[in-house]
Amino acid sequence: MSVRIPTLVTALARRARAASLVLAAATTDAKNAALRRLAELLPAAADKLLAANARDLAAAKRGRLAGALVDRLALNEARIARMAEGVRQVAALPDPVGEELERTVRPNGLEIRKVRVPIGVIGIIYESRPNVTIDCAALCLKSGNAAILRGGRESYHTNTALTALVGEALAHARLPAEAVQLIPTTDRTALSALLKLDSLVHCLIPRGGEGLIRFVAEHSTIPVIKHFKGVCFVYADQAADAAMAERIVVNAKAQRPAVCNAAEQLLVHRAAADALLPRLARALLAAKVELRCDPAAAAILRRHRLRHTAAKASDYTAEFLDLVMAVRVAPSLEDAIATINRDSSAHTDTIVTGDAAAARRFLAGVDSAVVLWNASTRFNDGFEFGLGAEIGISTERLHARGPMGLRELCSYKYLVTGTGQVRT
Amino acid sequence: MSVRIPTLVTALARRARAASLVLAAATTDAKNAALRRLAELLPAAADKLLAANARDLAAAKRGRLAGALVDRLALNEARIARMAEGVRQVAALPDPVGEELERTVRPNGLEIRKVRVPIGVIGIIYESRPNVTIDCAALCLKSGNAAILRGGRESYHTNTALTALVGEALAHARLPAEAVQLIPTTDRTALSALLKLDSLVHCLIPRGGEGLIRFVAEHSTIPVIKHFKGVCFVYADQAADAAMAERIVVNAKAQRPAVCNAAEQLLVHRAAADALLPRLARALLAAKVELRCDPAAAAILRRHRLRHTAAKASDYTAEFLDLVMAVRVAPSLEDAIATINRDSSAHTDTIVTGDAAAARRFLAGVDSAVVLWNASTRFNDGFEFGLGAEIGISTERLHARGPMGLRELCSYKYLVTGTGQVRT
Repeated sequence: MSVRIPTLVTALARRARAASLVLAAATTDAKNAALRRLAELLPAAADKLLAANARDLAAAKRGRLAGALVDRLALNEARIARMAEGVRQVAALPDPVGEELERTVRPNGLEIRKVRVPIGVIGIIYESRPNVTIDCAALCLKSGNAAILRGGRESYHTNTALTALVGEALAHARLPAEAVQLIPTTDRTALSALLKLDSLVHCLIPRGGEGLIRFVAEHSTIPVIKHFKGVCFVYADQAADAAMAERIVVNAKAQRPAVCNAAEQLLVHRAAADALLPRLARALLAAKVELRCDPAAAAILRRHRLRHTAAKASDYTAEFLDLVMAVRVAPSLEDAIATINRDSSAHTDTIVTGDAAAARRFLAGVDSAVVLWNASTRFNDGFEFGLGAEIGISTERLHARGPMGLRELCSYKYLVTGTGQVRT
Repeated sequence: MSVRIPTLVTALARRARAASLVLAAATTDAKNAALRRLAELLPAAADKLLAANARDLAAAKRGRLAGALVDRLALNEARIARMAEGVRQVAALPDPVGEELERTVRPNGLEIRKVRVPIGVIGIIYESRPNVTIDCAALCLKSGNAAILRGGRESYHTNTALTALVGEALAHARLPAEAVQLIPTTDRTALSALLKLDSLVHCLIPRGGEGLIRFVAEHSTIPVIKHFKGVCFVYADQAADAAMAERIVVNAKAQRPAVCNAAEQLLVHRAAADALLPRLARALLAAKVELRCDPAAAAILRRHRLRHTAAKASDYTAEFLDLVMAVRVAPSLEDAIATINRDSSAHTDTIVTGDAAAARRFLAGVDSAVVLWNASTRFNDGFEFGLGAEIGISTERLHARGPMGLRELCSYKYLVTGTGQVRT
């Protein structure tokens, strides 16, 4: 079997490439009809989906999968309804394809138009959450891209059933069902084969843990858009409003600690630390946050008898994804900026200050995808940015940085109209 | 020595990263002052440059380097003057950094601005032409990026002398000289080390032959912008003006056959082939082009006693870079589009037709970076597009497609201004 898998994956990618050319030329109406049909099919097929999911869950329990992973894997009617609602939202978004981005007329009379087009074939490699299958299928379809889905082996039967519904919805709108295909095997050889198909697949988006993303980036010859870790900072400046700083740091850290835009570290300006840090620490402790402090921060908290531990060096660059926060005192604004540029993951960092000059310097100097002033890091999000939906938050500097919506799933091409011009 | 090379390359990349943060905040005036100084230093240092170049040329001749490669490697006063002129042109271009690309205010009052920023640290890996050193240094500097240069071993002494001038020009403008560094060894280990420095280097641009580009793409964990091959098509439609088709195909093929936007293949619509193909063939033969034909095209040329050979299958996807052209008869417009989408390199393809509907279908259906109507493929070029200068023509679909100028050497970041907003 495993000798034939690369052949099978290549054939699947060829079908995806052919479908991508049809989908690139599809009307907005046809794409939306497929999406609306999919939103109807999902709840209508609940019994079939739950049966497929039950097979995956049974295997997961036999394999002693951790409880949290089993929970991520499980479907129920409410989760199916949420998937359908997400698909309806994508149908309601504007079509990014075909938009004219620029138009120039050159001195020789050539008219050059730059128009947005789909990327082509996108491979999505993800772990066990089956809603990713529907989210990614909907976003790729709307942006005119063919999708090759490689889900986790734990959710294989669920993903197969979901992908069959997508195919049915595409066919209903007279679009090629091969525009969204799941790799029909959980064999690891299939993933290795996919990563090398640079002549047929134009982009890979791995969604999952650091190990998966590193594996894909290291072994792929196809461009990869990474949605990597978020080591996000809150910097409370010397001119910070104390109540605002408290509200922002608690929200950034504790509102949903397991996501990439949650804050992992607090920096407090030395001139404000004596007054501000105890208040921030009390609020964080009340939100059940463990504080790991540098010596200067620890000295202040010790004087106020506030619970904390000493930070290890690795805490200063750690993505805890939990109710844990590193805390440091920054000697100056410039030091805070340098610390963030060295130790953050260049994802999302915020300054709390009433000093506009300090804010401008921070916004200009911090080299991160999203830099905020007087707002929570949690706002780095496709919905919050008004993109309507997102396929993730890119940590790349090329192509797309920050929240990726439909437009970020597109490329462009140049259309040049002449009257017989040649170069001399 | 070779054990220490990875350490040396890492230290160099760290200096580049630090310099990139300074350069990202540099004023347009400072960057232009450095560029203008470089343009002065180049002719002033001609003796030193020619002496360094003589060492490289002597080694190349001892190593029996092919004559064409020796010619590419050779500097002279005219070539130095052209480099200086190129640098002056870059200084005169608008600064892409800091431009506001979008601004929105969300219902919660958050103001979100998307602004253009440099990518960061760019690695340029190239072969023997020393002008690439200056071109790339100038474009990276103007776009606020630090550059790590890895030139061919044949031009090592020339590149070292050129990079020293760039450092002098940067220092003159009080910018960090480490913003442009040449890897100070020709050892292959240095390249391997560079390709893995994804925490310090944000983007690689290989410039050279297919082998170099493939090597970099396969071994790098850093995103690569490929400037790959151009297998470009001219399609003469049934409604083509014969004189225009002749002018365009001869220009596209023969004006400068060794460049990536030169045409490699001619398709002629079947309904026009009897009348049109002999005329086009005569003009191409007069321009000393060898014609490699499919059976249908060969039959027509045979009847007219026009010189040609039978094409091999590999000719239909070949980048000849020479006075050779594959010729085929296309049964229909749709067949021509499908043939181009299968066999071209998605670089640059043109239709010659008086039929606006056919042209629109071709422009929409051909999935290439640049698609033209009634103009030569040779116009896919940064200067011709009005970009002022280009670092190459990207064959990627992500980030930049087609000619890459200063703006395509940039990323963006989001600056978010609030009044204490948190997520609920």
